[in-house]
Amino acid sequence: MLFIPVIISILSLFFVWYLVIWIKKCDMGTPKMQEIFIAIKKGADAFLKRQYKTISIMAIILALILFGAYAISGRAALGLQISLSFLFGAICSGLSGLIGMWISVRSNIRTASAAQSSFSKALTIALRGGAVSGITIVAMSLLGISGLYFIYDALGYTPTQIPALLVGFGFGASLVALFAQLGGGIYTKAADVGADLVGKIEKNIPEDDPRNPAVIADLVGDNVGDCAGRGADLFESTAAENIGAMIIGVVLFPYFGINGILFPLVIRGFGLLASIVGILVAKAKETDEPLQALNKGYFVTCALAAIAFYFVTMGMLHNVLFFYAGLVGLGASIIFVFVTQYYTEYKYRPVKEIVNASTTGHATNIIAGFAVGLECTAATVITISVALLASFKLGSMSGLPSGGIYATAVATMGMLATAAYVLAMDTFGPITDNAGGIVEMSGSSESARRITDKLDSAGNTTKALTKGYAMGSAALAAFLLFSAYFEEAKLTVINLARVEVFVAGLIGAMLIFFFSSLAIRAVGKAAAKIVEEVRRQFKADPGLMEGTSMPDYAKCVDITTKSALQQMILPGLLAVLLPIIVGIWLRAEALAGFIMVATIVGVLLATVFNNSGGAWDNAKKFIEMGNLGGKGGDAHKAAVTGDTVGDPFKDTAGPSLHVLVKLLGTLSLALVALFI
Amino acid sequence: MLFIPVIISILSLFFVWYLVIWIKKCDMGTPKMQEIFIAIKKGADAFLKRQYKTISIMAIILALILFGAYAISGRAALGLQISLSFLFGAICSGLSGLIGMWISVRSNIRTASAAQSSFSKALTIALRGGAVSGITIVAMSLLGISGLYFIYDALGYTPTQIPALLVGFGFGASLVALFAQLGGGIYTKAADVGADLVGKIEKNIPEDDPRNPAVIADLVGDNVGDCAGRGADLFESTAAENIGAMIIGVVLFPYFGINGILFPLVIRGFGLLASIVGILVAKAKETDEPLQALNKGYFVTCALAAIAFYFVTMGMLHNVLFFYAGLVGLGASIIFVFVTQYYTEYKYRPVKEIVNASTTGHATNIIAGFAVGLECTAATVITISVALLASFKLGSMSGLPSGGIYATAVATMGMLATAAYVLAMDTFGPITDNAGGIVEMSGSSESARRITDKLDSAGNTTKALTKGYAMGSAALAAFLLFSAYFEEAKLTVINLARVEVFVAGLIGAMLIFFFSSLAIRAVGKAAAKIVEEVRRQFKADPGLMEGTSMPDYAKCVDITTKSALQQMILPGLLAVLLPIIVGIWLRAEALAGFIMVATIVGVLLATVFNNSGGAWDNAKKFIEMGNLGGKGGDAHKAAVTGDTVGDPFKDTAGPSLHVLVKLLGTLSLALVALFI
Repeated sequence: MLFIPVIISILSLFFVWYLVIWIKKCDMGTPKMQEIFIAIKKGADAFLKRQYKTISIMAIILALILFGAYAISGRAALGLQISLSFLFGAICSGLSGLIGMWISVRSNIRTASAAQSSFSKALTIALRGGAVSGITIVAMSLLGISGLYFIYDALGYTPTQIPALLVGFGFGASLVALFAQLGGGIYTKAADVGADLVGKIEKNIPEDDPRNPAVIADLVGDNVGDCAGRGADLFESTAAENIGAMIIGVVLFPYFGINGILFPLVIRGFGLLASIVGILVAKAKETDEPLQALNKGYFVTCALAAIAFYFVTMGMLHNVLFFYAGLVGLGASIIFVFVTQYYTEYKYRPVKEIVNASTTGHATNIIAGFAVGLECTAATVITISVALLASFKLGSMSGLPSGGIYATAVATMGMLATAAYVLAMDTFGPITDNAGGIVEMSGSSESARRITDKLDSAGNTTKALTKGYAMGSAALAAFLLFSAYFEEAKLTVINLARVEVFVAGLIGAMLIFFFSSLAIRAVGKAAAKIVEEVRRQFKADPGLMEGTSMPDYAKCVDITTKSALQQMILPGLLAVLLPIIVGIWLRAEALAGFIMVATIVGVLLATVFNNSGGAWDNAKKFIEMGNLGGKGGDAHKAAVTGDTVGDPFKDTAGPSLHVLVKLLGTLSLALVALFI
Repeated sequence: MLFIPVIISILSLFFVWYLVIWIKKCDMGTPKMQEIFIAIKKGADAFLKRQYKTISIMAIILALILFGAYAISGRAALGLQISLSFLFGAICSGLSGLIGMWISVRSNIRTASAAQSSFSKALTIALRGGAVSGITIVAMSLLGISGLYFIYDALGYTPTQIPALLVGFGFGASLVALFAQLGGGIYTKAADVGADLVGKIEKNIPEDDPRNPAVIADLVGDNVGDCAGRGADLFESTAAENIGAMIIGVVLFPYFGINGILFPLVIRGFGLLASIVGILVAKAKETDEPLQALNKGYFVTCALAAIAFYFVTMGMLHNVLFFYAGLVGLGASIIFVFVTQYYTEYKYRPVKEIVNASTTGHATNIIAGFAVGLECTAATVITISVALLASFKLGSMSGLPSGGIYATAVATMGMLATAAYVLAMDTFGPITDNAGGIVEMSGSSESARRITDKLDSAGNTTKALTKGYAMGSAALAAFLLFSAYFEEAKLTVINLARVEVFVAGLIGAMLIFFFSSLAIRAVGKAAAKIVEEVRRQFKADPGLMEGTSMPDYAKCVDITTKSALQQMILPGLLAVLLPIIVGIWLRAEALAGFIMVATIVGVLLATVFNNSGGAWDNAKKFIEMGNLGGKGGDAHKAAVTGDTVGDPFKDTAGPSLHVLVKLLGTLSLALVALFI
């Protein structure tokens, strides 16, 4: 049975290889475009090199701590295995990010070049570039876990022992994801805010203008934040979800046998296949809207995933109730996408409210956006609650002990079945964004600009939707992780009425708020350094403004890299160390209270950040389309304020919180020996 | 033993009577001043009349529901008693608010008049006006509960039965508090924002200018929001804390006898005496800083409260450990005051950060302020956690079963021992604010203005500190309330690992976010109506701007009243109905999860709202003192944006959340029969 996911993931990687060859064959555009491409490539490479160096050091230190912790409690052999799988998880996650970035940078320029002649071709390149990233991430996660399973199997462990040995892999993935998302998120918004503050506001030059010294850093930022960051986030989700579900599968071993343990891997494999088909059918005619094509692919993926779910569930679990639970999860993911759409698109009431509030000034714009963000937690919570309660109820109806919890795991699998396709749509965002930048900077034709603008606007939507999807899947995956933690820590009761547990919950909630404060402030601090450098360059060389001399892009990239990495250390360490301290000090049950309350608060605050940020962004875009005075009017100025406030909300703090709630789960699973 | 609190509270009310006579004898100033006074008085009366009418209707409906709920479960007699004590609690809370408002409005003008000649006299009037409010609130709460105790005692109930019968009183107080704080909070900020948006920004006339038609509504708002609202908030805290502690006292009846049940009432009585002494010693020389005098009184109150704690604890509980627990609570209240000071005064790093961020524009000001708000949750959580763990530990050391929980109750009493004094300082705020407005509008001398400015600035500080204190006490009182709820619902375990409990917790957290969204948006909606009316008046009568004709103040007051009351209904009903629905649907244990998670999130979000709001406010004031370009500069404009955003945060959403978390506790206690 285990051969199915292994074979599917290897086949998927071959498909990725085919896509890469296909993309590489596409035209690379004019020499001017290539010049910009090389600058972006250099910047991205430099950032990733340093970032992964920093992350590697932390991962090695943590692996040693992990080993030490188990060695002290007299289980050195187990500790060694968990530490090694931790490093393996970290490496797989890092590798997926690298591959995704590598192809993303190369797809940008080819999309830009194709936009000179054909909308349809440009869309296909951008989506296939995204697909390389999306499929690689899901396939690597699946292959990593299946491969580890094979190794442990060969070492003589029984199927019921193996899932607990995999937790290191999930923790490794979480750690890389946290730093990738945090570092990337700080980088991208610091560069964006820094470039805008001097360029747009002080110097009055348009976005993506080649005279702005921070423009390349800004383009690099789209890749490292949206592409590598979100990729690591969903790598973690799929890995954490697989491992959590397998641990719960062990509980049901008496009923399902090994099928219950391997089911998560098999169903993920079929989800990957469904996504590949979705990517192949998502094509557009020259006159189509880009979202039409992307939606077509999405619905094909959903339908195929549902069909696969039916056959795999009936074949392996022999109970249609679990198929329904899977449908609940799949349905919840679709609802998340629509809720995000409602709250962030200008067609609907929330963004309209912000647009209207912009006419009375900066403050009312901020108040309205914030109120929208707080409001949308209701839809999120209702969706999660219904999904959890309904799938739990379905599972309980099976009459199996722990059937309810297993069904919530199946629902999570349903939600993540379309992960590869959703990730492809997400990475489509930074690729089209960069393609637009390259077209703008290389002075291409008006028609090419129209095409990349259309693609870019669709990319903004898919980026926002993916955040909603990532948040929903983080919530369900986190629930699964602490269910698995209860198993491993042999806890049946998390008694919030005990003062230690309540206090731990309070501290967990505080971690979310305090971490967000650090993340938001980090953007401000890093941006301030970029503002300084951009101002310095404009002052030092008056030829810059006239366009007679070239700015020193590399210097800005370098400063952004340094300060983003510097700023990610403190929040990152806090997120890793605080749960360890609480777990050692107040013990396993209190730690469970900590992670559960932190998850609740994290999910809600991430919703506030993501959706208010998205809504502010689109309120500004709506005004820029010529409404309420259009660009440069008073309403527009107020809307720009909202958009700038929303930047670190939606691209740094919000996405980092998704990762954080999962990290808390995998960390406590991997270090459980320290807390009991 | 019960006679002690009754006699002390009656004596305190006599002292209030003395203060009222003393204040009434003070000079009422010029006819111009009296004209303004009458306008404020009329506006405040009109608002309170309508507000209390709305609240009465809701209270009567809820009393009927309460009775019906018990009647259905076959305990009509008990239901009748609880409903009657509910109405009694509502009436006592309403009455305290009325008395506080009545004297506050009358102290305003006398403070303004005294400021013509003497700083010392003006300060004393303002503080004594505040003291009338503070002492009345605490004394009425104490007298109400003690009186009910007497009645139930006379009806033949035993001391261990009575505390559970008092829960209706607490719920009644909570309900009035919620609507008083919500309605008052919406009123005050809608009027403030509405007056500023047209007056300061569109017409460029200063604050408190008599030409602004909304200026009286703004002055009325200070009274109904800060004075009546916070008064109801702390009335609820003291009532809820007394009742919760008495219920836990019942558990310890085998060890302490009736002393454990009556201890909360006795110690509260002595706290009241300590506050009265504090108020009498808080006097200033002509050259003193106002905060010097207020701090002197505060520390005298704290010291006397600590001494009283020692003797009462030793006399009634015969165990010094509980005295230490009381000191922990008293200490925590002092720390809360200092933490609030650190985060909201311009002397310290957080406000300085916001000031610096204002130089780069509106957006960076908002980001910095929000980061500060999120950050300060850390200090809040650490203080609450240490206070809970330390007092619990002390109580456990006594070896008594439930000794730990009783000690957390004693810590809460320690925290609230100084309530009357703190409330006096708080009401000092709106009195001096209004006095400043009267001085400004009546065209008084420059020296009088300097005095009221000095008092007003001290009042802003005390208002901010009281919010920190109210939040801390709300957190501890809420903890006490759900400990009492576990007793009444016969729950020993709140198992967050059960899916229903977890989902209920998720919904509880959502209530806090969604309620905040409604509260913030309510201000925006009400303010928009005022803006319309002010614009209409300026347009209809050009003589207004020239000062040749009088604006129609009453019309603005009327519109603000109507829209504030209208806007408070939805969030208020949501807060009352959602826990009832969750309790009936998912039952008692899940409801406990709901209120506990809601409390955690509510306390943290209230901290964010209160402190970011306070910090933005003071950042603006610091710039207005002539720094970074002073008034009218770019940094000032950005700081005004922050201040305006902070207004609904700190004066509507934040304080309403304090009340909400306590309401959840008293509501579930009063309706417990429905959920088990």
